[in-house]
Amino acid sequence: MPDYQAPLRDLRFVMDEMLDYPGHYARLPNGDDASPDVVAAILEEGGRFAREVLLPLNQSGDREGCLLEGGEVKAPRGFKAAYAQYVEGGWPSLSAEPEHGGQGLPASLGMALSEMICASNLAWGMYPGLSHGAADALRHHGSDEQRATYLTKLVEGVWTGTMCLTEPHCGTDLGLIKTRAVPTDDSAYTISGTKIFISAGEHDLAENIVHLVLAKLPDAPEGSRGISLFVVPKYLPDVDGNPGERNGVSCGSLEHKMGIHGNATCVMNFDGAKGFLIGPPNKGLACMFTMMNVARIGVGIQGLGLMEASFQNSLAYARDRLQMRALSGPKAADKPADPIIVHPDVRRMLLTQKALAEGGRMLVMYTAQLVDVTEHGEDAAERERAETLLGLLTPIVKAFLTELGFEATNEGVQVFGGHGFIQEWGMEQFVRDARITRLYEGTTGIQALDLLGRKVLMSQGETLKVFTKEIHKFCQAQADNAELKEFVEPLAKLNAEWGELTMSVGMKAMEDREEVGAASVDYLLYSGYVTLAYLWARAAGTAQQALASGESESAFYRAKQDTARFYFQRLLPRTRGHAQMIRAGGASLMAMSAEDFGLGFEI
Amino acid sequence: MPDYQAPLRDLRFVMDEMLDYPGHYARLPNGDDASPDVVAAILEEGGRFAREVLLPLNQSGDREGCLLEGGEVKAPRGFKAAYAQYVEGGWPSLSAEPEHGGQGLPASLGMALSEMICASNLAWGMYPGLSHGAADALRHHGSDEQRATYLTKLVEGVWTGTMCLTEPHCGTDLGLIKTRAVPTDDSAYTISGTKIFISAGEHDLAENIVHLVLAKLPDAPEGSRGISLFVVPKYLPDVDGNPGERNGVSCGSLEHKMGIHGNATCVMNFDGAKGFLIGPPNKGLACMFTMMNVARIGVGIQGLGLMEASFQNSLAYARDRLQMRALSGPKAADKPADPIIVHPDVRRMLLTQKALAEGGRMLVMYTAQLVDVTEHGEDAAERERAETLLGLLTPIVKAFLTELGFEATNEGVQVFGGHGFIQEWGMEQFVRDARITRLYEGTTGIQALDLLGRKVLMSQGETLKVFTKEIHKFCQAQADNAELKEFVEPLAKLNAEWGELTMSVGMKAMEDREEVGAASVDYLLYSGYVTLAYLWARAAGTAQQALASGESESAFYRAKQDTARFYFQRLLPRTRGHAQMIRAGGASLMAMSAEDFGLGFEI
Repeated sequence: MPDYQAPLRDLRFVMDEMLDYPGHYARLPNGDDASPDVVAAILEEGGRFAREVLLPLNQSGDREGCLLEGGEVKAPRGFKAAYAQYVEGGWPSLSAEPEHGGQGLPASLGMALSEMICASNLAWGMYPGLSHGAADALRHHGSDEQRATYLTKLVEGVWTGTMCLTEPHCGTDLGLIKTRAVPTDDSAYTISGTKIFISAGEHDLAENIVHLVLAKLPDAPEGSRGISLFVVPKYLPDVDGNPGERNGVSCGSLEHKMGIHGNATCVMNFDGAKGFLIGPPNKGLACMFTMMNVARIGVGIQGLGLMEASFQNSLAYARDRLQMRALSGPKAADKPADPIIVHPDVRRMLLTQKALAEGGRMLVMYTAQLVDVTEHGEDAAERERAETLLGLLTPIVKAFLTELGFEATNEGVQVFGGHGFIQEWGMEQFVRDARITRLYEGTTGIQALDLLGRKVLMSQGETLKVFTKEIHKFCQAQADNAELKEFVEPLAKLNAEWGELTMSVGMKAMEDREEVGAASVDYLLYSGYVTLAYLWARAAGTAQQALASGESESAFYRAKQDTARFYFQRLLPRTRGHAQMIRAGGASLMAMSAEDFGLGFEI
Repeated sequence: MPDYQAPLRDLRFVMDEMLDYPGHYARLPNGDDASPDVVAAILEEGGRFAREVLLPLNQSGDREGCLLEGGEVKAPRGFKAAYAQYVEGGWPSLSAEPEHGGQGLPASLGMALSEMICASNLAWGMYPGLSHGAADALRHHGSDEQRATYLTKLVEGVWTGTMCLTEPHCGTDLGLIKTRAVPTDDSAYTISGTKIFISAGEHDLAENIVHLVLAKLPDAPEGSRGISLFVVPKYLPDVDGNPGERNGVSCGSLEHKMGIHGNATCVMNFDGAKGFLIGPPNKGLACMFTMMNVARIGVGIQGLGLMEASFQNSLAYARDRLQMRALSGPKAADKPADPIIVHPDVRRMLLTQKALAEGGRMLVMYTAQLVDVTEHGEDAAERERAETLLGLLTPIVKAFLTELGFEATNEGVQVFGGHGFIQEWGMEQFVRDARITRLYEGTTGIQALDLLGRKVLMSQGETLKVFTKEIHKFCQAQADNAELKEFVEPLAKLNAEWGELTMSVGMKAMEDREEVGAASVDYLLYSGYVTLAYLWARAAGTAQQALASGESESAFYRAKQDTARFYFQRLLPRTRGHAQMIRAGGASLMAMSAEDFGLGFEI
């Protein structure tokens, strides 16, 4: 069975040493309670919960899956008890507002914990995971009464939430939804329709489930301008706020999926269910994006968690498994063969996982600071800047970390050789679980359009400039630092090229809008690699300072520098291909007619 | 359920128009029967068998898996009947020698058919698939008596074969095997030990199973120089050559795997089983490589088949699924949204699958001609040249087509969005099935070492030169062809760079052997992309000629040119990253100590 330990030392490096979280929390109005000691204690306790409670249920949950019987869904054995422990421990409310029962700690802390949950048991993590987005939508767009009714329950974890968007014929294109909401006498609505792919849509972990549902009013305009958001509880709360009458929403069936078997992915039937409008009529899409952005970063963290889990286990295997001698001569002469970690290509795979997981952690915790500031920053200009950067980085966090998360978990399988394909070892589960992260909450293609089309080009590149300026400043500040030259020089070049590529796509797109879609995924991956290069260069700088100041853990800091070097030499060159493909433009994509694609096999 | 049609038109293009198979067969002594009509009829019939018999069992086989009961393994429902039909139709013996009951057709024809089998049902295809390698080993290294006893049965498909190499503690490093072979009075051996990952090790499709087993003699030298090869039948043949007494070999358990559920992957226990030595004592590794090379190309073909199957189904979905409007304006104004094939990024994914599948087919059929010549070529120099090229291309076919096959099947999932993750659609099965191809018969890392270390550098680059010279000649011959310039110019540059990169690694490797392993996988991928570029450039030339000569199917040939253009503009630039990573050398891989890898999470 795979093992997992929360990467506490690395988190301390990222949070305390590199990104100055103590200073960051000190500047936040809700940061008082987040003293270094408290943060350390929470992270350690969270790591223990992940390892001791969630990890042992990960493989069994995958094997058992969920069971639908008589309309009730049973999560795999142990999931319910673990959830009770989670609620009991106060974990769901950690970073929620005190006025709704939360502990008021910064959101970033919850994000650091989220990585541990995803790493130890992704399928389980998705039961509480969706509640955050639902709570956020209610907090921002719900009426006082709705907040009073649902928010505390969601925050405490007594109830869980869902996002009911997708229908059989539409996922990306929500303007096509058919679910209807008809007003009734009592200022409520009757909701009818079918939603699919509803994660944690029905289960036995919590006493009630709060569905947030997109539907159309009878007089709604066509397309995405005619979508409204409703709250539809599984049990209608009674006068005391407790689960009362059963509502007309039920699970029609469970999907059979490639992975995350332990999570109930439901077809949800709304048969005249009672629902309540959230926010203004026909403005549901905006409300939904409140949930969606939270969820997207959450999915990026899933990618990160799976990278780390896979890395830790392939590392253990590579140290243990004896096979062949090093090409340069035996390294463990007393054993029948050398441990495979001596082989450069095995190291390449391990370092790929390590550089991506540690770099991904920097990206997530960098983004988490932006989330904190957008939520609680006291300076308006700082808040606006954080909003801008968060908008830019959200699709990168989501798509880059899940694309690379899939790659990293596959490297984990590859390190195991044939054993990686065998379920017992658990490495292939990471791959199957990771596969969904490239798809849900908007595929990589959709994230790429959001990044290049909406965020970068619609702002005439201004959004991007906020970030490239920051990188430029860093490069300038370190220009005379001889030891960092190997990082700062290529970073500065890439940073300039990023702007040029953006301009060149922007020019082409003015002639032909399709050029945006033609460049978008390569652009997103390029952006991801440059972003991580910036963070790895900073990490190398932090490590340099620590070593210079005579910090005791010199091996740790040297490993950081080595990993940065690996990233720059053996991963960052991928930008060369992406840059060339972006420059190639879309002509070669658009030439063929839809019919001609199949001429090789269609008779 | 996924559909599949054999790509007969494309095969005709590759075989008849591009690679002059009619001329190739006319030059082969065993090519007389392979007239264009016969070839076309066989391919068509094979495509029908794949589609009508194998395809309907692919998803059900995945769901059911195999069953071990009382030592007997039951393949999924329908597999046995399909195999009987396969034997009845004479398919197993198609390209086997007439003296052993074969039909004597060239091996290349069997390889073209093999793609169809892998595309329609990989798990089923592995029951007969392993027999080829076993037969080849017996043909080349068996005694007359062994050939008489086993070969005809294997060729006819009445019995199937296995390759029993891997043991729990060793796969790549076969020098470590523990299985023992003790001579007995009657010139036989008693085989004892445990083998794992034995594909089709036990099943109910054939009346007997012929295991080819690596084991060590009592006085064997240490390591890989002390390995011998044995034939160990499940039932010992009686005096009439029919299955007689049950031998002491049995299936201990079935592996639970990520994919190819329909194939029985067995732990095989040899408890004093009777075995017979093949070839000289302690020379088993050489005999095994006879099987292995056949099997490696076979696995490359598996990658190809899965690409094609995934491509066909994602194409159908992309034409059918309506979602969003094209950025440049509605393309299907009469429908609620445009089919997703209008979107450039969806086209990028489809064209990636298409360019890799069609390019992969060119590579396989190019390699297949080399196989034909090595087996039956009448000119010694030509045969030697074919041997050399085949040695060079085998690891590329194996590793490049499986790495890219995994990517292509994942693109297929991605085109389906969330539906791609749902088992019912069948797209995720292609991914799970494809995952093993990167691992078995030597991982990608092992293939890469074989290519760069054994094939290229051990020959001082001479092996590579045979191929780059051919590419160079092509480029020179086409130098004045203005229409091909967009392909020939970059190809010529890459071809020269390939030599330079090889030289630079070779120089570094003289200082430090680890540089080979540090560069190997990037080198293999680089080599694969250049090889496919050569073939795509040739294909573009063939299409150009056909269009110039006024061939009627102009849409087909233009689509070929468009796909070539896509390959050069949107896939080939990946070589930029690989070249840079090769040049970066191994220092960044070797710096960290095995202990320091885990400092971020180990306490």
